[in-house]
Amino acid sequence: MRALVLEKKDVLSIRDIDLPQEVGPHDVKIRLHTVGICGSDVHYYTHGGIGSRKVEAPMVLGHEASGTVVEAGSAVKSLKVGDRVCMEPGIPDMNSKATLLGMYNVDPSVTFWATPPIHGCLTGYVVHPAAFTFKLPDNVSYAEGAMVEPFAVGMQAAARAKIKPGDVGVVLGAGPIGIMVALAALAGGCSKVIITDLHQPKLDIAGRYQGIIPVNVRSQDVKDVVNRETDNWGANVVFEASGAPKAIESAPTLACPGGAIVFVGIPVDAYHLSIHALMGKELRVETVFRYANVYDRAISLIASGKVDLKPLISGTFNFEQSIQAFERAASGRPEDVKLQIELASTQDW
Amino acid sequence: MRALVLEKKDVLSIRDIDLPQEVGPHDVKIRLHTVGICGSDVHYYTHGGIGSRKVEAPMVLGHEASGTVVEAGSAVKSLKVGDRVCMEPGIPDMNSKATLLGMYNVDPSVTFWATPPIHGCLTGYVVHPAAFTFKLPDNVSYAEGAMVEPFAVGMQAAARAKIKPGDVGVVLGAGPIGIMVALAALAGGCSKVIITDLHQPKLDIAGRYQGIIPVNVRSQDVKDVVNRETDNWGANVVFEASGAPKAIESAPTLACPGGAIVFVGIPVDAYHLSIHALMGKELRVETVFRYANVYDRAISLIASGKVDLKPLISGTFNFEQSIQAFERAASGRPEDVKLQIELASTQDW
Amino acid sequence: MRALVLEKKDVLSIRDIDLPQEVGPHDVKIRLHTVGICGSDVHYYTHGGIGSRKVEAPMVLGHEASGTVVEAGSAVKSLKVGDRVCMEPGIPDMNSKATLLGMYNVDPSVTFWATPPIHGCLTGYVVHPAAFTFKLPDNVSYAEGAMVEPFAVGMQAAARAKIKPGDVGVVLGAGPIGIMVALAALAGGCSKVIITDLHQPKLDIAGRYQGIIPVNVRSQDVKDVVNRETDNWGANVVFEASGAPKAIESAPTLACPGGAIVFVGIPVDAYHLSIHALMGKELRVETVFRYANVYDRAISLIASGKVDLKPLISGTFNFEQSIQAFERAASGRPEDVKLQIELASTQDW
Amino acid sequence: MRALVLEKKDVLSIRDIDLPQEVGPHDVKIRLHTVGICGSDVHYYTHGGIGSRKVEAPMVLGHEASGTVVEAGSAVKSLKVGDRVCMEPGIPDMNSKATLLGMYNVDPSVTFWATPPIHGCLTGYVVHPAAFTFKLPDNVSYAEGAMVEPFAVGMQAAARAKIKPGDVGVVLGAGPIGIMVALAALAGGCSKVIITDLHQPKLDIAGRYQGIIPVNVRSQDVKDVVNRETDNWGANVVFEASGAPKAIESAPTLACPGGAIVFVGIPVDAYHLSIHALMGKELRVETVFRYANVYDRAISLIASGKVDLKPLISGTFNFEQSIQAFERAASGRPEDVKLQIELASTQDW
Repeated sequence: MRALVLEKKDVLSIRDIDLPQEVGPHDVKIRLHTVGICGSDVHYYTHGGIGSRKVEAPMVLGHEASGTVVEAGSAVKSLKVGDRVCMEPGIPDMNSKATLLGMYNVDPSVTFWATPPIHGCLTGYVVHPAAFTFKLPDNVSYAEGAMVEPFAVGMQAAARAKIKPGDVGVVLGAGPIGIMVALAALAGGCSKVIITDLHQPKLDIAGRYQGIIPVNVRSQDVKDVVNRETDNWGANVVFEASGAPKAIESAPTLACPGGAIVFVGIPVDAYHLSIHALMGKELRVETVFRYANVYDRAISLIASGKVDLKPLISGTFNFEQSIQAFERAASGRPEDVKLQIELASTQDW
Repeated sequence: MRALVLEKKDVLSIRDIDLPQEVGPHDVKIRLHTVGICGSDVHYYTHGGIGSRKVEAPMVLGHEASGTVVEAGSAVKSLKVGDRVCMEPGIPDMNSKATLLGMYNVDPSVTFWATPPIHGCLTGYVVHPAAFTFKLPDNVSYAEGAMVEPFAVGMQAAARAKIKPGDVGVVLGAGPIGIMVALAALAGGCSKVIITDLHQPKLDIAGRYQGIIPVNVRSQDVKDVVNRETDNWGANVVFEASGAPKAIESAPTLACPGGAIVFVGIPVDAYHLSIHALMGKELRVETVFRYANVYDRAISLIASGKVDLKPLISGTFNFEQSIQAFERAASGRPEDVKLQIELASTQDW
Repeated sequence: MRALVLEKKDVLSIRDIDLPQEVGPHDVKIRLHTVGICGSDVHYYTHGGIGSRKVEAPMVLGHEASGTVVEAGSAVKSLKVGDRVCMEPGIPDMNSKATLLGMYNVDPSVTFWATPPIHGCLTGYVVHPAAFTFKLPDNVSYAEGAMVEPFAVGMQAAARAKIKPGDVGVVLGAGPIGIMVALAALAGGCSKVIITDLHQPKLDIAGRYQGIIPVNVRSQDVKDVVNRETDNWGANVVFEASGAPKAIESAPTLACPGGAIVFVGIPVDAYHLSIHALMGKELRVETVFRYANVYDRAISLIASGKVDLKPLISGTFNFEQSIQAFERAASGRPEDVKLQIELASTQDW
Repeated sequence: MRALVLEKKDVLSIRDIDLPQEVGPHDVKIRLHTVGICGSDVHYYTHGGIGSRKVEAPMVLGHEASGTVVEAGSAVKSLKVGDRVCMEPGIPDMNSKATLLGMYNVDPSVTFWATPPIHGCLTGYVVHPAAFTFKLPDNVSYAEGAMVEPFAVGMQAAARAKIKPGDVGVVLGAGPIGIMVALAALAGGCSKVIITDLHQPKLDIAGRYQGIIPVNVRSQDVKDVVNRETDNWGANVVFEASGAPKAIESAPTLACPGGAIVFVGIPVDAYHLSIHALMGKELRVETVFRYANVYDRAISLIASGKVDLKPLISGTFNFEQSIQAFERAASGRPEDVKLQIELASTQDW
């Protein structure tokens, strides 16, 4: 089967590769339609690894995916051939303690698409457990379906934050994850979300959404904005999605007494948090590792119109243009939120 | 001072009455601008009491209020003369255990406007603790300010429900409280809310909001709708705001495994819940008694544009028309959600 | 294989019966050692069913079990031959939504030992998923291991209650489940637990535990005791484990403002709860349906010495005496908490 | 009135000092009986300040206190003359937002005994709000009453941890606060608590309690112990009470997936936490700043016998020996957990 293969650092190719196609009783086989490019895909391409995870053999990239069911295993009841779906890329051990506890995302034995040595889904067909494959409502497009994965990170952040209705949120960093977090926080109960960045194009995109207040930290003091928007009380939840040491350091000063700081996204560089700064306000810190049990909620928010992810799709490429798509993603244009590859138009796998 | 006085069951008069006007160090004095009519005001008028609370002496009605600060006590820092405000009508013992625990609404010693024998606020001026008086942002009108009180009930319901982002909600009953609950649940994280009633005009008003799915139980089976909207899983939260025995009985059947039922509003008649029906799904039941610590959150949601209460104001009367306003409210027109009395135009108190 | 078979209402026999013995990759095969008799076993015996669940074919009884692993499936890592274990009798669909959410107990497709038409474990050997089989520490006996199942119900009740350290609890009903709940509530954070019953022998057994205050409602007013023990505030959590209408009615009056009522055990008769009584204090109601993810916690509490279940074992029978054991259980002696059948001594299955 | 006065760094004196004695309507006046010496008292003595809080004028020390009510304000209902009591040393603004939210401990305007410039209670009489004065049951001694304050820190830690029944806890550091945390965690639901230190005498004291497993990190690897005690899953909650960088660094490695780390006690030196280490397991971090709403719970646990603090009282001095007591405390003997000063025997103030 043809696929976009990361041969090694800096080397992508479109070529045939052997991928398992056996459909077990609890699996479905899916014809891929759309796959988004994630920062981690790009990082594997440009750096050959993320932290201790190194690309040591050719690996198919891609994990933000939608498609159509073409075959369903004998025990599958929730899905049938022809269903339009999106897929959760991480698969836990179904018998593990973490899974039974409802937090399969922290199961140490999870395998995850396009995380070495597991192949991703930038290819024609994948076989996937039905339990991690979700039907798309008629009014949710394949392109939106492929946005569910990155939005799920925002959903997990919003869930871990334990937002109370009407909370004021701050999101540090207006990259793709930051914007996803801001939208999930708004949909999840915040009355408004202040989002910060150094890059005005990112803030302009975020600021088009009602309820999001963009703050360019080059020219504005975010603490002043938080004080103004919260009557000097502080934000109920501060989401850190920038990885920037200065932003991290500022987080406790922006939170209200008894508030929360939520760390989203694993930064490339190590960073540290001062405990002293947390204590005087008795702050809570939550961390987010991917997501669990949020796909159906994410889809429901998109389908109901509460969350509109379409403005975040900055470009769509066909499969033959995959490498160009990755090159553009790697160039880091601040006005690009999400680039997607549409595989459906490719006839011949 | 002139006021709208409930002399006894069925007898209202506009007349002078002595009301305390001394401003303590932690108090503010407020010139009333707008006061909404609540179902409880009407019930005291038409029945002379609610449950064990009887009107045994003339009582000023009204507790949904906004106005302008005209005097501030010596210790008040949060407010100043001229501030546009709305007021929380219940005042607890500030030294009580319930208050220190953060749930002053269940302090047994709470006094509450227009709950016998405490006078309400359908008059020219009131003296109120600054801690229970909230500044209105410039973009929130006095009319909206007077809607914060009923919306606060919805906010309390949404908070007690512990909504997770993307939950599906059901609200049984599309009266004023039901609609407030639906709006708070949506703003508080629900992806969509199914609301039920027997009266189409109420459903039509509720259904104009994006995300609210009206169901007329005369012609539709709400369980079918819930199944369709939740992929047969059930609703995460069912809010009961109808007081109707059939609706109450249906609540557990509409909830998902592990879901919640939230009872809002004290019904006139006693009603009962089958424990058996709750157990098989391990449901949680929450109850709502007024509200605590939600006014600032409610105002923030209104100011940010996430919640628009203006379409729920069905009529505005001046103070001299107060009795007509109560008569119309008592007539129970299904197309009336909220009637308000504007006192600001009255010069002479 | 020989087993204790409920042929139909009122008819037990010890006889050979065909039971599946195939060990799948994720299963273990267990030689049974001790099986406790549960009220539900007795009810199936004396009534031929519980609610809508009827015994329509011969069924092996028993679901409170401990034993020894004699064979382990190829994929099993957590257990090995010779391990002393106890077993969780309910098995969910591992791919279901409820299971992934961490609440497999409310998965509609759970199968549960000795719940028609599923056979129980009063026999020589059972095959069971390793994920629901738990190793016993050296200092926990087989007899205690067979007590984990009923104690798990108490653990689930204590977990659902969300006890805060130092809470005061009330348990209505001092039957086996009531005592289990009281012990779990104490171990789970309550400073003391007031337990009520009509039968003094039950109260005497419960009252021997430090921290449990027995109240015989024939001679004492439980509300007086609660008031005395809580400085008139009320109990933080009231567990209802009696099924008695009067007790149920009293529950809201015993709870503190903002407190919780937890319903444990499915009563034979329908019963109802007044919503009015809950509202004024804004009470929360939790229900308990079996348990999920508590076995390891229960075993840890027993092993650490915090919970001693041995005094609750009122009699031990060998397998040949099984029918006598059931007859004694059915006679309902108030001084019997738990009767157990020891199968280990039987050589010949 | 005579008092133990910290004149400035290193200089203590017993001398007369003017202290307010006016009893407001919500206050009580208390004859002090016993006052414990806290590490913060000692630190003010030996360093003249803690962080940014400097002793710039003579200050009475002491905040861990019990005594007897000798006068009650006109509005006080909960207490009467002669009541044996202990006192919460921090007093918030009763009208503040933090107080109404139930977290008065993080109210920025809290005043706290023996925190500059507020005088403490090592004197004859204090006037204190009745709302922060708690009656001692007959079976709780004055000495134990003066232990409620440090135990309250442990209670707050246990509450913030959101312990589930049967959790396994780790406490890093077996100083007075560490032991208090361990006892509160055990009483609050943990099945067992592993406590670590470098000093064997501290571990010996802690290890005398059932359920506490002492680990000397000089000779044992705490991770091995945690793995053994949790079947390689990790601890549900790790409490950091050592302030030692190595211990802090180890905390995330000891926690289970989805577990919590709770920081207790403000360390003298700044320290930092790696976010990376938290993320892979999606850990939660809680911090503790004093306590709120735990005194009654602490007293209930002591009175019920679940928590025995008496073995932690290492020495008792009379008021005239106060300075010697402080010198011994400052010497930091590892076998001293808590030193107390008994003021009751002093006749003449």
